[in-house]
Amino acid sequence: MDEQSIIAAAADLPRVGGGIVIGIGDDAAVVRPAVGYEVLTMDTLVDGVHFTQAWASPADVGWKTLAVSVSDLAAMGAEPRHALLGLTLPDTLTETWTTGFFAGLAEACQVWRVPVIGGDTVRGPALVITLTLTGEARQPLLRTGAEAGWLLAVTGNLGGAAAGLHALQTGKTAPAAALTRWRRPPARLEAGRALAALDRRIACTDCSDGLVIAAGLLAGDLGLELDADKLPIDPAAMALADDQNQAIDWALVGGEDYELVLAFPAASEAEARAAVAPLPLTVVGRLLPEAGRWLFRGGRRQGLPAHWGFRHF
Amino acid sequence: MDEQSIIAAAADLPRVGGGIVIGIGDDAAVVRPAVGYEVLTMDTLVDGVHFTQAWASPADVGWKTLAVSVSDLAAMGAEPRHALLGLTLPDTLTETWTTGFFAGLAEACQVWRVPVIGGDTVRGPALVITLTLTGEARQPLLRTGAEAGWLLAVTGNLGGAAAGLHALQTGKTAPAAALTRWRRPPARLEAGRALAALDRRIACTDCSDGLVIAAGLLAGDLGLELDADKLPIDPAAMALADDQNQAIDWALVGGEDYELVLAFPAASEAEARAAVAPLPLTVVGRLLPEAGRWLFRGGRRQGLPAHWGFRHF
Repeated sequence: MDEQSIIAAAADLPRVGGGIVIGIGDDAAVVRPAVGYEVLTMDTLVDGVHFTQAWASPADVGWKTLAVSVSDLAAMGAEPRHALLGLTLPDTLTETWTTGFFAGLAEACQVWRVPVIGGDTVRGPALVITLTLTGEARQPLLRTGAEAGWLLAVTGNLGGAAAGLHALQTGKTAPAAALTRWRRPPARLEAGRALAALDRRIACTDCSDGLVIAAGLLAGDLGLELDADKLPIDPAAMALADDQNQAIDWALVGGEDYELVLAFPAASEAEARAAVAPLPLTVVGRLLPEAGRWLFRGGRRQGLPAHWGFRHF
Repeated sequence: MDEQSIIAAAADLPRVGGGIVIGIGDDAAVVRPAVGYEVLTMDTLVDGVHFTQAWASPADVGWKTLAVSVSDLAAMGAEPRHALLGLTLPDTLTETWTTGFFAGLAEACQVWRVPVIGGDTVRGPALVITLTLTGEARQPLLRTGAEAGWLLAVTGNLGGAAAGLHALQTGKTAPAAALTRWRRPPARLEAGRALAALDRRIACTDCSDGLVIAAGLLAGDLGLELDADKLPIDPAAMALADDQNQAIDWALVGGEDYELVLAFPAASEAEARAAVAPLPLTVVGRLLPEAGRWLFRGGRRQGLPAHWGFRHF
């Protein structure tokens, strides 16, 4: 596909959402300003690093391109508005790939009501995809502000994405749900929006890099403890794991589940649970006044290694 | 440099501009909304395609990363607000390169008062830089709306960037101004802003891809004629060119001068000239009612080849 065909494909993405004055075709896009606060995020996906063409279809990559940014906005309690798409495409890329990519991106744009209003397409030695997503929030949810004694909780369930990736890497037969969880991650937009609307003291992030990392971001200088026996493990991860240890590892450090991880005072638990419904909300630990990261398991407490979350055991 | 050092370097860029509520460090950045209209652009630079490490220092690349996007906003008559920076960095990249890149980017951020409020840094097989720039405009200048009979004009002068690039490619000794013109392009922000403030019917774009392409964008379905004898050729391009033909080619199709190219009714010429001062404004042609692209030269009229602008003669 030449640049003109790619610009045409981008211009042909769903014309959803609102506020666009000038879309693709001028020196820059023009939109009406956000209401409340404007929220902006950017994510880059690189072929061979964030996805592999053998494990994810072009359409899956298109979906994920938007999904990971929508998840960032979900974690801010924000409403997505507009996307800009930056594509660096090698000459070796087939038209089939590009067409599939735009089809998957179009599905995600439709689901989350996000129009692509601009971007840039260039030739380059590697396939690199960068998406900028803007949104708006009346009162954004932040990562900061959590206090000792607050509960740590997570929406939905964990470990499914890592289980799916494991199946793809090892060639194991996997439930379709696990593969889909990795290939087409969700974004907990409604849950984030409802939590922000509570106007309570809630700290929030998404667990793109796993629960341990996410809980650590919320804790900051505080300590934290997680209870391995309380983790809401994805049934597909349970089915695929060799043993319970592996399923727990996937849930704690596998990452890419794109659930929301929250910290809030115990008194807000019922409200938070009602806000994220019909998603389940599971309390998986709490914040401690003194630094230190701990894992309870079968009644025993062990230290969480400092770098856990960046690698699997 | 590891990811943490790069995030630290990005967070250490000049804290200029305003409207930031949450910068780097949460799931997304939070800013106060734009006033008037919000204007958004994204540009990608790829090592070996848009720059070559042999011809541009890391600091030059850092400068250009912001400059090309500021030029897009200049062409919209908009005021830059906030940037997001996406970096795909190969393992082979040295810390010297990264430090230099951030130093040049910091200079540009300072000059144009643009803070970097977020982004993404990933490892990858090639050096790819994507920047998203937001801005605001009370009444944006558009590419569209030009009419037959309107004048075509350009700010500043042309051909310097192509001359500088030519010198780098051939090893010719070149005036420093020509090298700087290619390595550290300007952005005609004040001129764009003043033209937008006129609130006249003016069509505008920047000539990143050369005058012929830019004039064609303004013309749309109309015809156009350019006068080669009136082109404001950069003195450095005159000095470097083998003959006048080469200098004219650089000015017409060399690109990367990042001047503004305008179309307006003849009655607005004096106002437009006053608005862009102290930059010169040169009328270089006009729009014609019937399709066709023409070049006057030494009293003779020749057709402009359809694809001219994508390649040098």
